[in-house]
Amino acid sequence: MKKFAVVLSGSGVFDGAEIHEATLTLYAIMKNGGKYEIFAPDIDQHHVINHITGEEMKEKRNVLVESARIARGEIKALRNFNANDFDAIIFPGGFGVAKNLSSFAFDGADCSVNQDVERVILDMVKALKPIGALCISPAVIAKVLEGAELTIGNDKATAETVEKMGAIHKTTTHGEVVVDEGYKLVTTPCYMLDATILHIADGANNVVKTMMKMI
Amino acid sequence: MKKFAVVLSGSGVFDGAEIHEATLTLYAIMKNGGKYEIFAPDIDQHHVINHITGEEMKEKRNVLVESARIARGEIKALRNFNANDFDAIIFPGGFGVAKNLSSFAFDGADCSVNQDVERVILDMVKALKPIGALCISPAVIAKVLEGAELTIGNDKATAETVEKMGAIHKTTTHGEVVVDEGYKLVTTPCYMLDATILHIADGANNVVKTMMKMI
Repeated sequence: MKKFAVVLSGSGVFDGAEIHEATLTLYAIMKNGGKYEIFAPDIDQHHVINHITGEEMKEKRNVLVESARIARGEIKALRNFNANDFDAIIFPGGFGVAKNLSSFAFDGADCSVNQDVERVILDMVKALKPIGALCISPAVIAKVLEGAELTIGNDKATAETVEKMGAIHKTTTHGEVVVDEGYKLVTTPCYMLDATILHIADGANNVVKTMMKMI
Repeated sequence: MKKFAVVLSGSGVFDGAEIHEATLTLYAIMKNGGKYEIFAPDIDQHHVINHITGEEMKEKRNVLVESARIARGEIKALRNFNANDFDAIIFPGGFGVAKNLSSFAFDGADCSVNQDVERVILDMVKALKPIGALCISPAVIAKVLEGAELTIGNDKATAETVEKMGAIHKTTTHGEVVVDEGYKLVTTPCYMLDATILHIADGANNVVKTMMKMI
């Protein structure tokens, strides 16, 4: 049974992992005959957003602890990830990727990437194992993997920023997947487009199915 | 297009709505050709649980605000629910149902039910419109609808408590659905059993499919 690591960035689209993308990624992995373990960095969230008003709340939350809500408590700190234990790794989206796993939301092409996130991406490339990235996650991959071919959908400004980091961007629509054979990287836009939950299920399923063939 | 109301109880299995059940319910509704609006009561959570340690955290969170994480901000206060606007209503599970929507987790058969939750259940019964309930949610239905036929899976103690409230309990396994034709009530156990996310998708899909036929 192929084993996927899933990396979360909190719980909630505006300050953490996008919940539909995360859940439907777990579902896609099992539906395609795989199993998963869930990881997140043990760090404070950049901030906490009230998901009704969009305003910042005066709270502190931890990315690992909040990600555990999606994982039903079954989660490990990302620093404990070992590429030898997995066949593939996948990053669902959400602003948490651009705010907690990296500073992409604030610094664009000049962003920094969490050191554990960077390390696990590079470890998987070295091990010749596939990496999946949904929604805004490809932006972080772009920063780590020089010249990667990927998609963040059809948003011009984001595509340009990603290209500024040296990536080759391909425009895509719902459920479409871009494959970089060299890096074994599989990306799809999900909620970077004006999507419904049906599109998210399609995107996650197409990424996982493509990765399964690469393993 | 059939319109479902989905009632959430927070975001996270141990103090709110179970995230996989909630997400896969939304997915099942759209997959079966329906659409949805999401509701939650605008009240404080009973408490906040660290989903890694299981311990209580010294925090206050609001059920509506946290539910908005699953709803991507598109959510309404349950007091604004009007049965005329919907064809069906559905309650995903999670401890939030037994801690926030009711006091079932603490008071068992003697539990009280949030007044908006009670009102919307009774309004739907009066309107002869179907009600779906996953996981532990049927326990709350049992308190409101005298003598309802339903399932919470195969847990003896919970089944006995539900019967103490006057319900007729049917033992079920993964994905099975119990239908009470009189109340137009459809229930399935989901994570009340030792289930995987595949079972949750099945259960949610079977409930929604059954409800679609009743509309």
